[in-house]
Amino acid sequence: MAKIHGFKFVLVLVLSILINLFFLFNHFVDKDTELSWSKAAAREAELVASISCSGHGRAYLDGIPFQGEPICECNSCYGGKDCSEVLTECLADADSGDPLFLEPFWMQHAASSAVVVAGWHRMSYRFDDYSSISEELEKHIRQLHAVIGNAVTDGRFILFGAGSTQLLNAALFGLSLDDSPSPANIVASIPFYPLYEAQTKYFNSMEFKWQGDASLWKNRSDSSGTFVEFVTSPNNPDGRLMKQVLKGPSSKTIFDHAYYWPHFSAIQTAADEDLMIFTLSKLTGHAGEPIWFQLILTFLVMYQGYTLIIKERKAMWALVRDENIYKRMQMYISLSTKSVSRDTQLRALKLLKVVLKENGKDLFEFGPKTMRNRWERISRSFSTSKRFSLQKLEPQYCNYFQNFTGPSPAYAWIKCERAKDQDCNAVLKTASIIGRGGSTFNAESRYVRLSLIKSQDDFDLLIQNIDALVSKEGGVAYI
Amino acid sequence: MAKIHGFKFVLVLVLSILINLFFLFNHFVDKDTELSWSKAAAREAELVASISCSGHGRAYLDGIPFQGEPICECNSCYGGKDCSEVLTECLADADSGDPLFLEPFWMQHAASSAVVVAGWHRMSYRFDDYSSISEELEKHIRQLHAVIGNAVTDGRFILFGAGSTQLLNAALFGLSLDDSPSPANIVASIPFYPLYEAQTKYFNSMEFKWQGDASLWKNRSDSSGTFVEFVTSPNNPDGRLMKQVLKGPSSKTIFDHAYYWPHFSAIQTAADEDLMIFTLSKLTGHAGEPIWFQLILTFLVMYQGYTLIIKERKAMWALVRDENIYKRMQMYISLSTKSVSRDTQLRALKLLKVVLKENGKDLFEFGPKTMRNRWERISRSFSTSKRFSLQKLEPQYCNYFQNFTGPSPAYAWIKCERAKDQDCNAVLKTASIIGRGGSTFNAESRYVRLSLIKSQDDFDLLIQNIDALVSKEGGVAYI
Repeated sequence: MAKIHGFKFVLVLVLSILINLFFLFNHFVDKDTELSWSKAAAREAELVASISCSGHGRAYLDGIPFQGEPICECNSCYGGKDCSEVLTECLADADSGDPLFLEPFWMQHAASSAVVVAGWHRMSYRFDDYSSISEELEKHIRQLHAVIGNAVTDGRFILFGAGSTQLLNAALFGLSLDDSPSPANIVASIPFYPLYEAQTKYFNSMEFKWQGDASLWKNRSDSSGTFVEFVTSPNNPDGRLMKQVLKGPSSKTIFDHAYYWPHFSAIQTAADEDLMIFTLSKLTGHAGEPIWFQLILTFLVMYQGYTLIIKERKAMWALVRDENIYKRMQMYISLSTKSVSRDTQLRALKLLKVVLKENGKDLFEFGPKTMRNRWERISRSFSTSKRFSLQKLEPQYCNYFQNFTGPSPAYAWIKCERAKDQDCNAVLKTASIIGRGGSTFNAESRYVRLSLIKSQDDFDLLIQNIDALVSKEGGVAYI
Repeated sequence: MAKIHGFKFVLVLVLSILINLFFLFNHFVDKDTELSWSKAAAREAELVASISCSGHGRAYLDGIPFQGEPICECNSCYGGKDCSEVLTECLADADSGDPLFLEPFWMQHAASSAVVVAGWHRMSYRFDDYSSISEELEKHIRQLHAVIGNAVTDGRFILFGAGSTQLLNAALFGLSLDDSPSPANIVASIPFYPLYEAQTKYFNSMEFKWQGDASLWKNRSDSSGTFVEFVTSPNNPDGRLMKQVLKGPSSKTIFDHAYYWPHFSAIQTAADEDLMIFTLSKLTGHAGEPIWFQLILTFLVMYQGYTLIIKERKAMWALVRDENIYKRMQMYISLSTKSVSRDTQLRALKLLKVVLKENGKDLFEFGPKTMRNRWERISRSFSTSKRFSLQKLEPQYCNYFQNFTGPSPAYAWIKCERAKDQDCNAVLKTASIIGRGGSTFNAESRYVRLSLIKSQDDFDLLIQNIDALVSKEGGVAYI
């Protein structure tokens, strides 16, 4: 009996010691990978991220705390402490091009996309390679274009800028600062992105002059001077792939390829132009458009005599073939605001690494699918309508997917078909929908741009209000 | 015997179980604070930070990896895999204003200054308060000025910009965009920061025109139009506190207070001007001056006909009294590059929180002490010299320290006293010292600016070369 007891005892003891050893081993293995100075920041970030905002909002590290605690910032049309309340009489805002449709993707890829910035990270601007863009970042951008096949980077300089305006301006200065006695003429094809006109006019430089619609200058004489044409392809607002209108030795082109990613367009060919501009914001969804610009709009209209709506694209780059133009652009960037901050570059690099995993498989499964679904959904909403029409877009062969892909534009370009609906934006507003009127893009006010790239909450409300509007059509007299 | 055995057995077992319980408890308590998605990024950052570069270099997260591993980027005049090799025939570069003297401070405050940026952090630019600067950041900036006592923020708007050039330009546009038919005249007092002239000329705007030295316009007539004067105080290069030269209703002033922090100057009074510009970079030491600008200098001289050296100040703000001027500046920022990136704002906020701890006690113990020591050291080096003189600076009463404090300027402003040493920069260069020539600041070439705010390695080498130069004086004939 005592022997059996003893045996059991030994068994339990051995077991207990084994468990001890297991814990001890674990403890030391853990020790090895334990964090020191970064732990507090990591905890703080995870704490803020863990705050529940009911899926209709988010708490941020730099949010305004309430009683010392970070609080939820709710999506439009949601309110309450945890964003669970649906606000009534709320407008569906489809105005801005804030690419929040990719937010869920980054939340799914939290671990690979987080960045820890040490307090002493890159305090100096000095790079060992003396360039404005870290060599690593440049390498990843070239790799990105190669993987997607949307641009040729061989024999191109890469210039990194802090925003669309900066880089577009740099291009303008780069191309127009000739020894030519007369200012360069700046043009674009209607409908076009309003910033081109606004900034050309605002800087009021002796080097260049805004000349409006490109097609008016097709048959110009040689003595008309240098022309610089802005071409956005795929186009904002209507998503069409564009070519330049003006040709010949005296005309230069700035290609804005902000939307030439698999999310928004089939990749039909690798762009091979002299001066091309791309942005990370429409690829990864980081950056949007500060709403306060809309608030100063009234002031701008009063003060400058033209309307202006501005878009931000935080991290952008230009691919430039000519070295002299590249150097002039570099000079402009240095004078206007200097290179992109190191924090932004560090984050951009991390995001690109996630994008490039398995040749973009994850992101380009999520992004194009989301955008295609939204296009199909809004097409269905308008399919029964005779009052409104959507732009026509056909499936195209995409080299990236090696397959035909359905349309997935960033914006719907709506036309009001009824003769009396001349102000289409006003018509939509009666149905609590906020779009961006055609006149902003120098087109007829019969057109309105609706953003399809905002958050799912925004899109759902937009569809709800469109459906309500279209369903009423039967009851309204057709004129 | 068996009983004793049994007793010992029980004792060991109880002990073992207790240890298990301890580990188990620990495990669950740890569980509570264990990290999930941020862990990988935190580990990566700590791994890079732990790479030893012998105190003469640093490895960075976005550095160019060698065989997949991050590598050391060495300080100037150091080389080798771990930066332990001293490079011979290396120049002491005291040219740039890269404020690396604060790097050790941030390494000492690693835990409180690190930031974790989640992949989905602030993808949208939307702020609930619709302003360009997060409310939290603005609050901390006001608090900062209150604690230091270097500026009045009551009744001021705060505008945040991405760099000195941007904000200074914004100020220029803000003040000169009147309905006035003639362009505004832009002036500054010699010696002045060369960017003012360079950017005014470069933008070649119809709104303003560079007119050089302010003192030439003291007795102007009323019909000379609007004047905008740049005043840097403390002055760059010579560290003196400055006032505007031009007065009267037709003159406006932009006060550049980049160096008005306890590191570089006694805080004699809270600045109370209409338009004041401050920067984080000279306060926290984050940001410097990209060296590649120097490389394109040759190009600039060739192309534009003037020399240009540019400084970057990553996160800046302006305190503006007049709402209309504030709005015009805001418009300029929106057109030239848009608001500061959210990553930069987030980091700025974190750094400010560290700065503000105990009313700035830690930072303003480290910073002013370091700068004062360097000034005393370089003064000692030149004290026996008859060939070179330093600018004269007196101890002043500082409201922040509530005491008299010795000089601690950011730059030494050296004068070559010998008649034949007209090009002082060339003289220093023979002693392997690189300074910035007086002509850059529109002063005589008999002057040279030497930067005192770079890393300790840079400063030590500078002193070593100065001492060698001064010790040779006896042997050289005095002319």
